[in-house]
Amino acid sequence: MTASAFSEPAGVPRAERGARAVWSRIAEPADERALALVAEHGAVDALRLVLSADDGVPEVFRMRADRYRVDSDPGSQLAAARTLGATVLCPGDPEWPLRLDDHPVPPLCLWVLGSSDLARLAERSVSVVGARSSTSYGDTVASGLGSGLAERGWTVVSGAAFGIDAAAHRGALSVDGATVAIVAGGVDRPYPLAHTALLARIAEVGAVVAEVAPGMAPTRPRFLLRNRIIAAVSRGVVVVEAALRSGSLNTARTAAEIGRPVGVVPGPVTSMMSSGCHQARRDGLAEIVTDVDEVIDLVGDFGVDAAPRRSAEPLLADLLDPSDARVLASVPVRRAESALDIALTAAVPVAVAGAALGRLELQGFVRRDGDGWRKAVVRAG
Amino acid sequence: MTASAFSEPAGVPRAERGARAVWSRIAEPADERALALVAEHGAVDALRLVLSADDGVPEVFRMRADRYRVDSDPGSQLAAARTLGATVLCPGDPEWPLRLDDHPVPPLCLWVLGSSDLARLAERSVSVVGARSSTSYGDTVASGLGSGLAERGWTVVSGAAFGIDAAAHRGALSVDGATVAIVAGGVDRPYPLAHTALLARIAEVGAVVAEVAPGMAPTRPRFLLRNRIIAAVSRGVVVVEAALRSGSLNTARTAAEIGRPVGVVPGPVTSMMSSGCHQARRDGLAEIVTDVDEVIDLVGDFGVDAAPRRSAEPLLADLLDPSDARVLASVPVRRAESALDIALTAAVPVAVAGAALGRLELQGFVRRDGDGWRKAVVRAG
Repeated sequence: MTASAFSEPAGVPRAERGARAVWSRIAEPADERALALVAEHGAVDALRLVLSADDGVPEVFRMRADRYRVDSDPGSQLAAARTLGATVLCPGDPEWPLRLDDHPVPPLCLWVLGSSDLARLAERSVSVVGARSSTSYGDTVASGLGSGLAERGWTVVSGAAFGIDAAAHRGALSVDGATVAIVAGGVDRPYPLAHTALLARIAEVGAVVAEVAPGMAPTRPRFLLRNRIIAAVSRGVVVVEAALRSGSLNTARTAAEIGRPVGVVPGPVTSMMSSGCHQARRDGLAEIVTDVDEVIDLVGDFGVDAAPRRSAEPLLADLLDPSDARVLASVPVRRAESALDIALTAAVPVAVAGAALGRLELQGFVRRDGDGWRKAVVRAG
Repeated sequence: MTASAFSEPAGVPRAERGARAVWSRIAEPADERALALVAEHGAVDALRLVLSADDGVPEVFRMRADRYRVDSDPGSQLAAARTLGATVLCPGDPEWPLRLDDHPVPPLCLWVLGSSDLARLAERSVSVVGARSSTSYGDTVASGLGSGLAERGWTVVSGAAFGIDAAAHRGALSVDGATVAIVAGGVDRPYPLAHTALLARIAEVGAVVAEVAPGMAPTRPRFLLRNRIIAAVSRGVVVVEAALRSGSLNTARTAAEIGRPVGVVPGPVTSMMSSGCHQARRDGLAEIVTDVDEVIDLVGDFGVDAAPRRSAEPLLADLLDPSDARVLASVPVRRAESALDIALTAAVPVAVAGAALGRLELQGFVRRDGDGWRKAVVRAG
């Protein structure tokens, strides 16, 4: 990311953007008190109330403002963003994914590393999440979904964790597809550290997105609240592997609560890593999905993106008239039998059996053998 | 089966039983013309009409009666049954499973080898069916369900085919449980031949059941019609593995049509042998089942047999007050941090954090380190 590529979004005023960036540092994600203050006063004035130690403002915001030495100058936060090559996106920006506002406690802003047009990236996107301690089966399925979705023009959203998340991102990257990582700490704190290069690559072709300000650590509550963004930003969530206790199921439940379709990938019933997926289906939280077509069917536009219904190739014998099929089924393979015996087995009149045998012979299903009939060698049903 | 153990059921009159036995030879399974004639005239008089070549009777029945040299003497069929050690069960016998009559075209009689009290065997029974060309995963699951169901006092019904059917029967046999094989040909024609010993063992501890008379071959239409008995006789059907084109799915659909619950066992999405199970779930035909508890929950009495809901063991940290849990999540592991910093991360007042840290210390979750706090070594959340 070169400095020349960097520009601030043009939607909301600079002061508002700067103030929201401050709020992302002094309030924890999804703090309803912060959201209420910003809704009532606007981000700028709400921040002024905090800094003036107003009685109507929870003490913790002022203490955190002191601690992190923030001030009311929007320039300082935005300069920090610029230094990192990050963008601060706000509701009201054209690049803001409107879907986020389906959540009752949407983020006040997002720090984005990489492509700042999150609205475009999210338009046709699916969140693919799952267990950190995935199996090789799960990794295979997740990377297959990641590459398949990306090839079809869908953005793969995930959480950059070990296991399923990483496999999904990597699947998309493997076909130069778009992928977005929603992280729990600041965008400048790659986590897990082993995914530093992966996150850098995701920022190159897609985006790395955080609700909390740079420098902030990925704590457990932030992981859980981060999940609501994964649930809200895309069209739907697919869980590839999940144990019964699983953060991915938390994401799935959040998604279902705000009306997003949820899919789970089934797996061996002998695998603990699939038990959460199976339970989610049994609880009515999710439908099962077994390939890319079914995922797109789940999250896509009705009709346009509908999956072809799975069915076996028709066998030639399926095209037969039912009565002919009944006669054919009564013709032995290993020895010849008379038309009469075949008619009796099929429980049809002899004349019907005779006519059917003639047609079946022409179609290559049966052949004459002495005075009788037997099935032709080709397997026909 | 010794001759002394043999006795004819005491429900329907001997003439009726003998006539129905004849009907099972001259009519194919589920022949609605035969069912209508028997319903209108009774089995005995309907057979008399056939033998007298009455104009109101389809010619095929008379031709088959000629062919198989049947007569109106009930004794001849019942003697044949006695020779085989088989029982001819009829609707009206106390041993007749009433559930069979839920099917619109129930069998006219059943030939039973082994325990003739099919009503008792079927009372708490589950049909476990699936692919002939099963995988070792499917076989493992089927035999586990078979043994688990049998241990819980459930009868395992299946079709004695290769693959899943055999694994389900063998699972039940392995714990000396009850199991019933519904076969497509006569009870004296073991099919597949490789299962001759298996079928003999099933007849010893349970029953081998056929709708068609002894001597009759297992043809393809008879297999399909046999499936309706597997679907109707038990409380519900579980499909362990099935390709998209599968006789087991035919059984499942029939079961669903007559109101029986249907379960499918999920498997790897990469396995063709699980694709029929997954599709059945997606079509709304079945719910997924992953173990014996869930199967019994599916087919058992509401409440009495309900499966324990799957959930993970609660962690100690789950028992914490939410505010304490929030503070705990903000305590670092690798270094100590002040109560103030912890309060700021947790976004709670310092007094609240201080009190929480005291409680968490007593519970062993955190420990003091210099002037600060860090998580205790035991993983607690």
